[in-house]
Amino acid sequence: MAKVAIVGSGFIGRAWAISFARAGHDVSLWDQAGSAVGGALAYIAEVVTELEKHDLTNGQTAGLVTSRITEAQRLEDALDGAVHVQENTPEKLDTKIAVFTTLDRLAGPDTVLSSSTSALLPSHFTEHLAGRHRCLVAHPINPPYLIPAVEIVPAPWTSAEVVENTRILLSGAGQAPIVMQRELDGFIMNRMQGALLEEAFRLVADGYASVEDVDIGIREGLSLRWSFMGPFETIDLNAPAGIRDYAARYQSIYENIFNQTRYRTDWSGPVMDRIEAERRERLAADELPTRQKWRDSRLMALTAHKRKTDKEYGK
Amino acid sequence: MAKVAIVGSGFIGRAWAISFARAGHDVSLWDQAGSAVGGALAYIAEVVTELEKHDLTNGQTAGLVTSRITEAQRLEDALDGAVHVQENTPEKLDTKIAVFTTLDRLAGPDTVLSSSTSALLPSHFTEHLAGRHRCLVAHPINPPYLIPAVEIVPAPWTSAEVVENTRILLSGAGQAPIVMQRELDGFIMNRMQGALLEEAFRLVADGYASVEDVDIGIREGLSLRWSFMGPFETIDLNAPAGIRDYAARYQSIYENIFNQTRYRTDWSGPVMDRIEAERRERLAADELPTRQKWRDSRLMALTAHKRKTDKEYGK
Repeated sequence: MAKVAIVGSGFIGRAWAISFARAGHDVSLWDQAGSAVGGALAYIAEVVTELEKHDLTNGQTAGLVTSRITEAQRLEDALDGAVHVQENTPEKLDTKIAVFTTLDRLAGPDTVLSSSTSALLPSHFTEHLAGRHRCLVAHPINPPYLIPAVEIVPAPWTSAEVVENTRILLSGAGQAPIVMQRELDGFIMNRMQGALLEEAFRLVADGYASVEDVDIGIREGLSLRWSFMGPFETIDLNAPAGIRDYAARYQSIYENIFNQTRYRTDWSGPVMDRIEAERRERLAADELPTRQKWRDSRLMALTAHKRKTDKEYGK
Repeated sequence: MAKVAIVGSGFIGRAWAISFARAGHDVSLWDQAGSAVGGALAYIAEVVTELEKHDLTNGQTAGLVTSRITEAQRLEDALDGAVHVQENTPEKLDTKIAVFTTLDRLAGPDTVLSSSTSALLPSHFTEHLAGRHRCLVAHPINPPYLIPAVEIVPAPWTSAEVVENTRILLSGAGQAPIVMQRELDGFIMNRMQGALLEEAFRLVADGYASVEDVDIGIREGLSLRWSFMGPFETIDLNAPAGIRDYAARYQSIYENIFNQTRYRTDWSGPVMDRIEAERRERLAADELPTRQKWRDSRLMALTAHKRKTDKEYGK
């Protein structure tokens, strides 16, 4: 398998390292703060052990998976021979420009330079580079070793071959790539998340729903089908003659709603006092880390369930 | 357990019958087209057998559950002694007005009259009734025996006691009720579904995403966490100091997106040609019924998984 370099060993970088190593790649992990990598490796060992317990290491021992991840002392060492670099530095434009300038200078001519950014468009930090054709964004939902979807976002000058090779690499690593035709603020997933959250904040701000009502409506309602079909397939199966039939039957309801929702709710305004109070009543601030561990366990159990039912019933 | 009357034996009525019978209620099923009920009962027997296979009958045999559901020859017989009537007639205002007029005339004074409507506000078909205080909407996502969320929507004149008793009845039947403070077009869930779908249609219409890209982004991405936490808890756990911290960090991204999305896409316009072509390429029209059975099996497996992990890891 090919060598992958991970630049930045924070929560996204270390998660990517697990995903690539599980797929059999040699992973070289580098961080500007060299002292950070030791902590990342310890974290990785712990997570991979958990993954093995949930049968999510593709039949490999945790030790075998983690043995593929090594610390690079110098960035040059990490890049040497890598087919793919996954960059995970802070979401600041100046930082990304500086990091990509260095990567483009040091990496071999065929190495793909991929950013994990969720907030910045690839054209904004790669335009000036000699090797800008080999730069793109591959944006995961964290952690990618449990959540397969990854958005591949090309800049206008990214070559089609680089996009396609990245798609193949990520598919092979067990991800489910979305390939955007061109860049757009928020990409695909955060635009859909944003649309849902906007409506959720509006419903709470206007006094129609509690925070818990919204969460019930999704976790005990809409998201059950979405979690194995997505929203388009859901409505395609929800009218006798398929999706066109669904639109003909229900579009007027949604149009009516749309016309009521063209104003924005300030998420940091008075509504946040209510939302935060309600959340902290359900979960005290000092219990957030425990709950995050619970989330990760549930996510592992759900992923194992999806793998099993994909096999048993088909995708 | 109390007696529940189901009015209308179509797909929503028969699904409600299963939910209430599984919880131990005596269910009396009536349909204006009396000949329809036989088909509904056969369908119910088949579904409950499937539920038993997935360990979703709360330890009861399928035979015991279905034995609680009986056909009423006359509406009066169905209503006699019922604490709750769940109405499932076509989504036409004239029909609802006529049906609720009849129900209010025939039902005992303490019987709650509840509509399954997804499209009509309860004030629009109950205002004229002597017993309008005991009328409301309880809107499920079909089928309620697999999808717990139900929206309880009062009209302005619905009594608080009726709302509370309905909440208790539905909770006891294994549902997860959302109690709205007052009515609103689309209630909670269809407003959130509509917001997500609007963005999905826009992304396809504007050439940024394929139908499959959108579905991947939800089913292999956002919906995994949503399916056990909901969107508010998800973002509460996605910033070090909780939901206020999340809003402070990311609101500007979402605000930027919001300003790009204040136009509507006509779902029945040219975009539908593309969407339908893509869907029919993945799933031919004559395979829709088979795929609906697949969906129901996946939903049963997911529900069983959620019950198990709720116990193992906590909710």
